[in-house]
Amino acid sequence: MEFNFEDHPHRRYNPLTNEWVQVSPHRAKRPWQGQVEKVDEEQRPEHDPNCYLCAGNTRINGEVNPDYKDTFAFQNDFAALLEEIPSGEVNEGNGLFKAKSERGLCKVICFSPRHDLTIPEMDVDGIRKVVDLWCKEYAELGARDYINYVQIFENKGAVMGCSNPHPHGQVWAQESLPLEPEKKQANQLAYFDKNGKTMLSDYIADELKQGTRVVYENEHFVALVPYWAVWPFETMIVPKRAVARVTDLTEEERDALADAYKSLTVKYDNIFQVSFPYSAGIHQAPTDGEDHPEWHMHMTFYPPLLRSATVKKFMVGYEMLANAQRDITAETAAARIREQSLTHYKSTVL
Amino acid sequence: MEFNFEDHPHRRYNPLTNEWVQVSPHRAKRPWQGQVEKVDEEQRPEHDPNCYLCAGNTRINGEVNPDYKDTFAFQNDFAALLEEIPSGEVNEGNGLFKAKSERGLCKVICFSPRHDLTIPEMDVDGIRKVVDLWCKEYAELGARDYINYVQIFENKGAVMGCSNPHPHGQVWAQESLPLEPEKKQANQLAYFDKNGKTMLSDYIADELKQGTRVVYENEHFVALVPYWAVWPFETMIVPKRAVARVTDLTEEERDALADAYKSLTVKYDNIFQVSFPYSAGIHQAPTDGEDHPEWHMHMTFYPPLLRSATVKKFMVGYEMLANAQRDITAETAAARIREQSLTHYKSTVL
Ligand SMILES: O=P(O)(O)O[C@H]1O[C@H](CO)[C@@H](O)[C@H](O)[C@H]1O
Ligand SMILES: O=P(O)(O)O[C@H]1O[C@H](CO)[C@@H](O)[C@H](O)[C@H]1O
Repeated sequence: MEFNFEDHPHRRYNPLTNEWVQVSPHRAKRPWQGQVEKVDEEQRPEHDPNCYLCAGNTRINGEVNPDYKDTFAFQNDFAALLEEIPSGEVNEGNGLFKAKSERGLCKVICFSPRHDLTIPEMDVDGIRKVVDLWCKEYAELGARDYINYVQIFENKGAVMGCSNPHPHGQVWAQESLPLEPEKKQANQLAYFDKNGKTMLSDYIADELKQGTRVVYENEHFVALVPYWAVWPFETMIVPKRAVARVTDLTEEERDALADAYKSLTVKYDNIFQVSFPYSAGIHQAPTDGEDHPEWHMHMTFYPPLLRSATVKKFMVGYEMLANAQRDITAETAAARIREQSLTHYKSTVL
Repeated sequence: MEFNFEDHPHRRYNPLTNEWVQVSPHRAKRPWQGQVEKVDEEQRPEHDPNCYLCAGNTRINGEVNPDYKDTFAFQNDFAALLEEIPSGEVNEGNGLFKAKSERGLCKVICFSPRHDLTIPEMDVDGIRKVVDLWCKEYAELGARDYINYVQIFENKGAVMGCSNPHPHGQVWAQESLPLEPEKKQANQLAYFDKNGKTMLSDYIADELKQGTRVVYENEHFVALVPYWAVWPFETMIVPKRAVARVTDLTEEERDALADAYKSLTVKYDNIFQVSFPYSAGIHQAPTDGEDHPEWHMHMTFYPPLLRSATVKKFMVGYEMLANAQRDITAETAAARIREQSLTHYKSTVL
């Protein structure tokens, strides 16, 4: 019997984080008797008078949203990070009790005034305005003296903790470099120092040659299921050019990113003919004033659905306490996403 | 204005993993309009003819469960790890495509024949039998040549991916040291080499002195919310003596562990008067044949509920892409757990 990566349990290495994932391809066959998710079939209005993100509505703190026409950003009324705090530090008990104050701020970014849309249902011009807003927020927040990292992300779907279906994302900006980008920075730096190229340039060159994990490609971006994917249909959108941060993208590349974002999410929705939940976000260079030629920005998608519109992968028990684990191979997932149409299942257009 | 760790956002350091958690104490005040969980109020029978874990029933593969009286272990019919696989390895593309076969096995361990019970509803004698089973499995599986680590864990509640309410846990045993215990091993080793004592001996000595995060204590164990807790009501049960693995516990200590396990989970259930979901598991020395004096075993609980029986903490977006984040302080959570009665809310006994 020969070892076979399609069938036999194995581990794969993630060079961006220096961590391994346990892959158990045969396991997808087990029957599922556990919790199933609700499918939200609700037909939403274009404007909802009770939505605190819709144009013209009043938010909980009394502020009135402007009558915005494309995107709109504001400071989160219940922010996890605050700007106006004094600084403080604890270091006691032989280094076992260490804490320090953390300054920052959190913004909400509305993608569209249309309450009834999601990214895959918006047109590319509208999504391009979202990309422009990311650039503006990254530049403005990153320019503040004390802000060293800007995390742009989107929680889509109730199962991903999203409490309002109005299309929106968030931006959290802060003093410290958070854990995930810190790992990716250290490993990209080591690779860059050794090879004089970004890790992801070499990686996507190989992926484009192999083709088995690529799910979409345009002139400037490739979308693929990484070799080391953890979530069932995890993907990343990577620029073909080694770009460290969104603000370094050319106009053409911004358009291409909007196109890739739409194309990938349309395919996602088509898999189970449901609005596909995920958390997505951009990993890019910190805003610490350094150049960071080692950074190759990328947008990562972590979608939880595994077998159907209602059965998700639970990252619990073994996964929380021991190691990330997945039940289908990256190649199987990629084939499934790739074969989906670029026309949204809800679309009435041919 | 002075910095105040009860109110102001800060980061705390986890010396076991060498990672920081973002703490945002003020954030618990935000209103929640997102997904709520179902409360399972179903009154279960003592024996369910359709349960594949109940005594005497036939499992999906045709095997018949014995008529067990306390605990029962068997190999998982849909195991993520398999014993009988050939070995294989990939290392290509300048180290960017690395994979290797992983041998192992997965067992299911039934805590009791009583379908209607959970750990907090079992008596300490019954739980002591579970502790004995952990010891047996750790010893037997760990003794196999190729098994270097044994992860014992429990997923409790549908929200934690548990697909059968019959009280049970799992044991996954494998070749490699998984990520979480690997991190804890490296940091405990560095501490031990430097200080000649286990990290957790020093840590719990300080915690017992301070008292603010301790939630339960008996002669041999302390249960506390770690200073660096991530999940809202995260706790760990730690032996007072530096014990590396369950099989090194004395008879008395095994009893005390059973008592601490029951007491903590009774308090958990009492917080929201609901069967409190969690993933829990034991981190302990690998079974690689080494001594591991640096290891101080502990049992960790990751419960997701935050505000009520139906509102959980979502670890999504920022948490997945950037950094672990929590909305209440460890001290607030500890006070809440500590004040709960040791009598289960469902109990009819005085
Ligand atoms: O093995 P079970 O109980 O069917 O499955 C559950 O626990 C496993 C181990 O934590 C996870 O991998 C699964 O995602 C979860 O649903
Ligand atoms: O800020 P929101 O959308 O209310 O909250 C959601 O996203 C946050 C950032 O990922 C998480 O911390 C919350 O747990 C989640 O419910």
